[in-house]
Formats: sequence, structure tokens, C-alpha cells
Amino acid sequence: MKNLDNKDFLYLKIGHKIERQIQSGVLKLGDKLPSTRIMGQQYGVSISTVLQAYYYLESKSLIASKPRSGYYVTFSAHTLPDSPAMSNPDPNSILGKNTELIIDFFQNISTETVVNLSLGVPSEKLLPIAKLNKVLHEAIGSLTHGGTIQGDILGKKKLRRQIAQRSALWGGVLTEDDVIITSGCTSALSLALMAVTEPGDTIAVESPVYFGLIQLANTLGLRVIELPTHPLYGMDTEALQTAIDTNEIKAVAVISNFSNPMGNTMSDNSKKALVEIIEKHNIPLIEDDIYGEIYYGDHRPTTCKTYDTKGLVLLCSSFSKTLSSGYRIGWISPGKFKAEVIRLKLYVSSTTTTVTEEAVSLFLEKGRYDHHLRKLRQRLHANSLQFLVAIGKYFPEETKVSRPQGSFLLWVQLPAHIDTRVLYKSAVANGVRFSPGRIFTLQEQYCNCMRLSYALEWNNKVDDALKCLGQLIKDYK
Amino acid sequence: MKNLDNKDFLYLKIGHKIERQIQSGVLKLGDKLPSTRIMGQQYGVSISTVLQAYYYLESKSLIASKPRSGYYVTFSAHTLPDSPAMSNPDPNSILGKNTELIIDFFQNISTETVVNLSLGVPSEKLLPIAKLNKVLHEAIGSLTHGGTIQGDILGKKKLRRQIAQRSALWGGVLTEDDVIITSGCTSALSLALMAVTEPGDTIAVESPVYFGLIQLANTLGLRVIELPTHPLYGMDTEALQTAIDTNEIKAVAVISNFSNPMGNTMSDNSKKALVEIIEKHNIPLIEDDIYGEIYYGDHRPTTCKTYDTKGLVLLCSSFSKTLSSGYRIGWISPGKFKAEVIRLKLYVSSTTTTVTEEAVSLFLEKGRYDHHLRKLRQRLHANSLQFLVAIGKYFPEETKVSRPQGSFLLWVQLPAHIDTRVLYKSAVANGVRFSPGRIFTLQEQYCNCMRLSYALEWNNKVDDALKCLGQLIKDYK
Repeated sequence: MKNLDNKDFLYLKIGHKIERQIQSGVLKLGDKLPSTRIMGQQYGVSISTVLQAYYYLESKSLIASKPRSGYYVTFSAHTLPDSPAMSNPDPNSILGKNTELIIDFFQNISTETVVNLSLGVPSEKLLPIAKLNKVLHEAIGSLTHGGTIQGDILGKKKLRRQIAQRSALWGGVLTEDDVIITSGCTSALSLALMAVTEPGDTIAVESPVYFGLIQLANTLGLRVIELPTHPLYGMDTEALQTAIDTNEIKAVAVISNFSNPMGNTMSDNSKKALVEIIEKHNIPLIEDDIYGEIYYGDHRPTTCKTYDTKGLVLLCSSFSKTLSSGYRIGWISPGKFKAEVIRLKLYVSSTTTTVTEEAVSLFLEKGRYDHHLRKLRQRLHANSLQFLVAIGKYFPEETKVSRPQGSFLLWVQLPAHIDTRVLYKSAVANGVRFSPGRIFTLQEQYCNCMRLSYALEWNNKVDDALKCLGQLIKDYK
Repeated sequence: MKNLDNKDFLYLKIGHKIERQIQSGVLKLGDKLPSTRIMGQQYGVSISTVLQAYYYLESKSLIASKPRSGYYVTFSAHTLPDSPAMSNPDPNSILGKNTELIIDFFQNISTETVVNLSLGVPSEKLLPIAKLNKVLHEAIGSLTHGGTIQGDILGKKKLRRQIAQRSALWGGVLTEDDVIITSGCTSALSLALMAVTEPGDTIAVESPVYFGLIQLANTLGLRVIELPTHPLYGMDTEALQTAIDTNEIKAVAVISNFSNPMGNTMSDNSKKALVEIIEKHNIPLIEDDIYGEIYYGDHRPTTCKTYDTKGLVLLCSSFSKTLSSGYRIGWISPGKFKAEVIRLKLYVSSTTTTVTEEAVSLFLEKGRYDHHLRKLRQRLHANSLQFLVAIGKYFPEETKVSRPQGSFLLWVQLPAHIDTRVLYKSAVANGVRFSPGRIFTLQEQYCNCMRLSYALEWNNKVDDALKCLGQLIKDYK
């Protein structure tokens, strides 16, 4: 599937090509790039297009200009820490207790935190606040009742249509009737899970896994089987097949693109394989694609829903990770479970907020979303490289770090003797927050891991925070 | 407990006194009221205060002025239809299917409806749209991030404080720490029910009962016992005691004030008795007080929470029935179940919409809520009388109608041979909608009943709609 950017932005094509050369080490730290004139001839484009490509690479901190000299590579993949290995959770369902940890984690977000690396959503510095305020003001005026009245239980038709149209980007063929608006992705996920399971059922998930999902499952009385997951390629579909052969799995849940917390993305083939398995066994698949739009590469990844032929995939997403978590606008495309999801939405959560639903509709209709997404992706990609370099510099040598190709989360594996639950307390005392690895599992594992979020503005304070964290880890006894 | 209105508005005191005389028949249809001068002397107040009282009664259609003659009573309780008898549901839990009926009811709200008497929330004509728009615009500006960022999982502190302060009005002693903001009352109710029950548990409710509650219970795998309920005085506490003696009741749910659909309100003594029962048996009580602020009398009724000494009452409410259903701002005061409700909120529904939460905060802080409520109550009370008179005029003689002392819902019991599910279809074909009685129970009952909502602007079209409905009932075969 081709991405629109590809056709529209020639400079990005050239930028991505040079980027791959830098990432793979073909272009090395300190190498001088060819002049814009020579590059222009080489690619058959104008000098200004080459300059745009260089600006793009500069914005990602991959190259830098030296006055009266030219552009130089400032990044090296070789100085980066290794990626972690495939995860290896217990194949049986184990229900550990980690609730207190998470509650503490959510309730004590004090203003004393200097740098918050546990952000689940982009900091306001990365959001188009002024433009969003504008559509929000506009929304109040454009609704005759100012948004005081509840809308259709399915959600606003024009927003459902916009979402359906965007499905073409991941190879989907949704229509507005396939989409139901929800109060964020949390609500989409809980409706999905309630629609396809009953208390006592068993579900299979990635490991490490988004803590909200397993806590929700716990709350609904479900057993959870965590599956081995590759830090780059995601859920091990063979392990899933084994789990299905040995357990009565009633649903599978996965974040197929740039998963939380490990950043892994399933290849098209893995997605196809996963859909084949669930179709063969008639098992619903809850797919959380909340990060799918934040890709660093040159095209948006597909989803499992792309390959769904039997309506078994319940695709969940939202605008919380890209636009505004405070608006509470998400959506679900529930496949053949539509009637049940509508019924549940009526009684469990009801309609979404009228005025923010209208604002998101307007933002999309005006075509502002794609413009914002391009900027967001670029900044987050640049941040990811800054973080990788900083961790390589400040953290112990044995540290392993994931290599996300989208979103804004890093999975960091520290030396085995470090318990990040303990480290967390000293970090908070030093004004730095992160997410301890233990919350991303129901088992006793990932205690030496942490999730770092780089959904903030990169600056010296953040660099200092990573330095401080690195020092705390080195001093850990 | 004294109501603020009482001290502040002398005219209301006088108005309510005359109102009671009219309602009880002391003042009869056609009676001339004393002149403002004589009334002023009688009550020791100014003529303008008496005039205010008369205007108030006029706005409720209880009296009317005749030019150059004075004020006359235009209402008579005696021409009104009778009130229905105590309900008599099956004492055992019976799980009937009425889902399709409700879904249809929610999905096919077309614009062709001329008059919608099935409104669950006030029509925009009764809402302070301009003032709400103003605080909403203000909210966007006052939040540095324009409301794009999620707030605290508990909800905004200043809104929780406003709600806690208002608890004094019903004899409560809440603090901001006792209140959690939710996405409307639906979310409050689902969190409450999930917090205190497990699938397979049995709960006891009123009968007829708010359909959302029993559908939610159904969804959560709960058994539901419907209890006999008096159309004026609410849940029969003796029947509850019997149910507890013969079943393992894990939770009780009640709308203690102006219940949906029957309009019944528990007396202070009934509320005390109910709390005594649940405390004796250590059973959580989910109290939905969503209509409590819309009282027609001279003071706000208490709640069961008023008498709660053990933290067993989970009080749920929202601003949807008084201010704006589209804002999705409700709240729960979960008593001793606070930690569990927070945990559930995190995973099932997450935070509420930041900007509408801020707008409601501002509206309350500016003291606009009470002013609006006074107007709303007056208009709804006037509507209730208009509806009662119209039904008395147009419906068959055997019709029985409830006598709500607050809110905006009437429970109408038609002759036994009429199935309101059938009637519903012909009514919709005639551009009139109502809520068929069958949706307010899981049993095969109330098929000859309907719920009429008068949360709209009274005018000739509404009068015509009731006339049309009356004719359809008379023509029913």
C-alpha cells in the first residue's frame, strides 16, 4: 500500500533514503553529505528539494550543518544499545497482583515532577493547541444547542465517515456504518472485551502488555495468557497457536503497530498469519491500533483488520495519542459484533461528549489532521533518536533498548539485579518519572525493565533527566 | 432541612402555600384569589412580593389573571386522572428479553418525529444554552492546553468541591475527597455496579425500573429481583426485607427521588428504613439521585446517603438532567468502595472530557446553577400540570397517571387490553414518540403502561400530540 506522503513530498523520499543509509551505517558519524547541487543532479530534482530533505534530516538530529562547509552526519546506529530479546512469559495464566503499584503510579503525579518520562499521551508542546482551540470554539457555534444535547449512540455521522475514509490508508474498506465513536480507546477496548467474553473466559495477549488491558481483563473476571513477543516483530503467532491448542482461548488482544510498551510492530505476514489463526478457530481479535498513525517510515502500516474476512476483528483506536486525550474521542470498528457493542455502549458508557466530537470532525474535515501528523511523526522520530543516543551514553553498557519504528515509547531492559520498582522511588525523589516494567504483566517478570516515553519536547532538562536516571541505575545496589 | 430558596425568596414561600391549597382542593377551579393588597397585609409583605408569588403561580398555569378583575384558580386536582396502584412484580428473578425493543427505540429517533415524549433529558429549549456556551468558550481559554490534556482520574478538584458543597442541600457532609467525576451518570452507575457485584450475583431494584439499570445488570451477568414499588412513596422496604430473607442480595439499587419511570419519591422515614436494612445486612446501596435537584416543593429532598453511617451507599448523579447531557459530566460518591471505583474508572472508562468538566465547574462557581435550577423547576412543574390536565381531557377515563413532585416523567397506566408496544408503532407513524412500559422491567408486565416525558416546551403542538395519542388509545382494538 502506497502512502500519500510518497507522491506529495519528493523531499521525503530522498530524506528517507539518506536516513536508511545513516541507520544502516552506510553513512557514518562525521561523514560529509554531498552538496545540494550534486545531490540535485543525482536525484534529478531541484536544489530546494534537496535542501528540504536535509532540513528534514536535521530536524531529526541525523545530520547538522557546519557554516560554510556543508552537512555532516551526527548520528551513529553503532553507538546505540542493543535491542532486547524475545520475551519469555510463563505459558500458563498467572494472576499476580500489581494493582497498588499502578494506582500509586496514577494518583501521585505531583507537580514536583521535573521530567515525566511516563507520559501515556503526547505533551501539550507537541499538540496543535491553537488550531484545536479554534475548531472547539467553532464547534460550540456550529451546534445550535452548543453541544448541550447528547448525540446519536453510534456517534456523529460525519466523524464516522472521516474515520472510514482514513481506513484506505491501512488498506481498509470501512464505511461509516462500520464505525462507532467511543469515549477514547479505553472505552472502545472495554466494550470490545465485554462484547466477546464472559467472566471465567481466557484471553491471549502480548507480553509485556499494555497494563490497562490486563487490569480491565482482571476486572471482568478473565484469565490472561501472556504470549512470547518479539521486540521488533510482535506477538509470536506460533506460540498463539500452541496456546489455542492447549487452552480454550475466547479472544486475542493485540496492539499490532508500535505496541505499548515494547514498540514492536507485526509484519504484514504476521498480521495475515494471526488473522488466519483466529479465523480458523473462530476467535474474536481485539486489535488496538491507537499508535498506527505515528509511523516513522514512509507509509502507514496495515492492521490485522486489513486482512479480516469474517468480521472477527474488533479494531479500536482514538485521537488521544495524536490529537487530544482530553477530548475523549475514540472509536471502534466492531465487525460482526456491532449490535452487541452498541447495546453495551448504551448501558455501560452512553454517548460521547458532543462538542469535542464535533471539534474533531471539523479538524479532520478541514484537512488539518494530516498536516499535524506529519509534524508529530517527525518530532517523535527525532526524539526517539535523541533518547537512544542519550541512553547509550548514560545507562550501563548491558542496557538493552527497543527500536520502535513509530509512536513514542521505549522499552528498556536493565541489568538483572535492578528492580525498577525500587528505582522508581529514587527517580521520583529526583524529579524523574518512568513506568516500571512490572506493571506490564500479571506475572513476576520485567522487574528489571522500564518504559520510557519521549512524547515531550526534547531539551537539556530531558537530557539531564536521562543522565540522572542513568546515574541512579549505575549507583543501584 | 431548610432550602436556600426559602430564606432568599419570600414570594416562593407564599406561592407554595397557595399552591398547596390549590392542589389539595381548598382553593377550587374558578375561585378568585384575594387582591394583592389584602394578601400583602395578611402575610405582612409588600404588594410586589405578592405579585411575584402570583406570577410564579401563573407561570405554573395554576392561576390566571383576568383584566380588571384579578387572579383566578385555573387548575383543579379533581379533574385529574387517578394515580396507579402499588406495582406487583414477580418476587422471583425473571430474565425476559426486551433488548430489541430498546435498541429500536434508541436507533430510530428520526427527524420526522413531530413531538418527542420519550425524551430522557430536557430539550434544549429548557437549557441556558447562551450561558453554557459562554462558560464553554471561557473554559477553552482558561485551560493553558485548551482542554487537550487528560485531567486527574478523580476529576477536577474544584468541581468535586462544588459538588461536595451542594451536598449540604440534602443534608450530606461530603468533602471533595468523597466525590469522583464520571462520564455522566451512566458511567457512575456502571462503575458502582461493577464495584460491588460479581457475575451471578443478585441485586434488588424498584419496579418499574430505569431500563438502563436492568440492561446494565443483565450485561454484567447479574440476576435482578424487582420489588413492589408505590407510585408516590417508592420502593416497598418490607418487600425488600423479605427478598433479603429469601435470597442472597448482593446490592440494592434505587432512585430515591422522583424515580424513573414512575416519579415516586421515598419519604425521609423510608430512606432511613432502607439504610437501616442495608446496614443490618451489610449490603451496598447504589442510589441514583439524578433528579433530586428538580423538586417542585419548597425544599430539596434528602437522599439515602444522608442517613448512611457505614459508607455503604454509592450515590450517583450527573448534570445531564439539569444542565447538559452532551457534556457527559456526572459523579459518584462511592463511600467505602472508593478505591475499587477509582481502579475501575481507570480501566473501564478513563477520565472525563477536560473542557466540559471545566465549563461545568465555572458555571457552578459563578453561582449560575441555582438560578437556572429555579427556572427549570418552575417550568417543569408547570408542564407537569399541563400534561395532567391534557391527559385527563384526552385519554380514556380508566387511565391512571402518576403524580411526580419533581423531575419530568409521567407514568401512565392505560386500560389492560392496550399493548403500548403496538401503540408505539402507530404513535410513531403519527409523529409522536413515548417510552413503552415493557422496557422498564425484565418481566412480562407493564405492557399497558407508558412513560411520558414533559421535558420540553409546552405549546399547542404538544397539546395536539397528547390529543392524538389519546385518540389512538381510544381507537385501539
